[in-house]
Amino acid sequence: MHTDLVAALDIGGTKIAGALVDRQGRILVRAQRPTPAREDGETVMRAVDAVLDELTASPLWQRAGAVGIGSAGPVDATAGTVSPVNVPGWRDYPLVSRVRTAAGGLPVELIGDGVAIAAAEHWQGAARGHDNALCMVVSTGVGGGLVLGGRLHPGPTGNAGHIGHISVDLDGDLCPCGSRGCVERIASGPNIARRALDNGWRPGPDGDTSAAAVAAAARAGDPVAVASFERAARALAAGIAATATLVEIDIAVIGGGVGKAGEVLFAPLRQALTEYATLSFVHRLAVTPAQMGTDAGLVGAAAAALARSADAAVAAV
Amino acid sequence: MHTDLVAALDIGGTKIAGALVDRQGRILVRAQRPTPAREDGETVMRAVDAVLDELTASPLWQRAGAVGIGSAGPVDATAGTVSPVNVPGWRDYPLVSRVRTAAGGLPVELIGDGVAIAAAEHWQGAARGHDNALCMVVSTGVGGGLVLGGRLHPGPTGNAGHIGHISVDLDGDLCPCGSRGCVERIASGPNIARRALDNGWRPGPDGDTSAAAVAAAARAGDPVAVASFERAARALAAGIAATATLVEIDIAVIGGGVGKAGEVLFAPLRQALTEYATLSFVHRLAVTPAQMGTDAGLVGAAAAALARSADAAVAAV
Repeated sequence: MHTDLVAALDIGGTKIAGALVDRQGRILVRAQRPTPAREDGETVMRAVDAVLDELTASPLWQRAGAVGIGSAGPVDATAGTVSPVNVPGWRDYPLVSRVRTAAGGLPVELIGDGVAIAAAEHWQGAARGHDNALCMVVSTGVGGGLVLGGRLHPGPTGNAGHIGHISVDLDGDLCPCGSRGCVERIASGPNIARRALDNGWRPGPDGDTSAAAVAAAARAGDPVAVASFERAARALAAGIAATATLVEIDIAVIGGGVGKAGEVLFAPLRQALTEYATLSFVHRLAVTPAQMGTDAGLVGAAAAALARSADAAVAAV
Repeated sequence: MHTDLVAALDIGGTKIAGALVDRQGRILVRAQRPTPAREDGETVMRAVDAVLDELTASPLWQRAGAVGIGSAGPVDATAGTVSPVNVPGWRDYPLVSRVRTAAGGLPVELIGDGVAIAAAEHWQGAARGHDNALCMVVSTGVGGGLVLGGRLHPGPTGNAGHIGHISVDLDGDLCPCGSRGCVERIASGPNIARRALDNGWRPGPDGDTSAAAVAAAARAGDPVAVASFERAARALAAGIAATATLVEIDIAVIGGGVGKAGEVLFAPLRQALTEYATLSFVHRLAVTPAQMGTDAGLVGAAAAALARSADAAVAAV
């Protein structure tokens, strides 16, 4: 059978998206369901099954050779299980075996959602042509993934690149993860907004207290809003510089809602990087906005499935 | 010609060591010179040449198929140059081409000294059998190297794993590297001693104010000495946890003079790791003392040369 497509699943706390994707990364068939995130685990799985049912009903399904899953984390690629923070009904949930069964026994590749974003940006987005890259999502949370030596680096369990929960302030504020001074605790959208409010910023007549509203205020010159983004930029810079110093990356790609803030984020971020990325081998480190849109998770999951197929083909030679 | 040996060079600010090493990591021939670290670059190179002259004079030299160099950093494996902080006469010094010429044209592999230590611990020491490991040297400075997916990860320029200069305290004290709150700025031997003295610790009758003396005081229960090691342990834990969260390692090996302090370092380090390594996929992270002795740099440089030969052999198939 000629299998020139892969199936992709992007599983988050809000929606479960699926697609059939070709080797050029084009999405040929789509399906989507809301995530019943507060329901029990089997109810959540039924939403995944509904997405897969739509895909398998397509005449193109017979050309699919593998399934790639990018899931909210933590995941455990070794055990084939997921425990998404925002889906409490799934704890060590055997998603890989369930999907394999629903997909007629196709091989299944599981990675974290940050790793999937990195795969997508490396394949088709802002990290294309870079053999060593960090791709981040700065949004409600802060996640990420790594490309090292030209290949995705999911790590043994599929969670590598989790830059949101490295500490850049070892005496800093407690993070919900249990650690202190994590990048996410300083640089996520909710923390940017909270800090601005704590320091006296007030929203406009619409009452919008989101990080996007703080970004708009910063662009208009509000000093408290500017300072909150500068603080986020310092935390991101320290985390990005740490990553570059540890594994040698030459580009950091930043997506997600906060990544869309533009120069109110990127200008202080570039400045702060000159302060934290000091060693000669990290001097040329660039930061740039993400290019992939809302399909990044699907495209990245497809990339991981295709890479696995390619490895298997090489191993079979 | 049967080339079952490699030549290894370990180049530091104090000494330049050389060896012929077999595929089991046994050192068959040795040579060594003091590093004329304050002299001009050509004078330093003459010391390297003297070491190589001794090796090439050995009847075993004809069995050497490659040269591995582990050098004080930063290095630039892409350009083949080194710029060791403590050897000011060498800035972008073309060490690889000079060694290649002196070694009769053999292929030369250049890595940083922290990377070499990691190669040695992975091959023969405390990281043996671990596919994902961070190996550190905590001494006058703090260096390191990474093994990822079962292979050494030197990074494109040979400097990856440079954990001493990641910031774990973004508002912290200025580091000589230009950044703030680096792991080295908090956890190196001189910083452990300085902090103890600043907080009122006084040396014994021998006047020894080294980190080893602080360690002895800590073992005897001196609370200021204990606190200085605890602070170093927190910085090391934050850095090790960051590394594990970014690339998924399951063991951190700590060598160097401070690494020999024993439980006054390792007990608070294990405690602090439970605070900073919070995500499920880093829970099983272990820390352990290094096992390799003073030959680690030579053995690691040999390992890198052998790995390069193996890659070349595979590529030639």
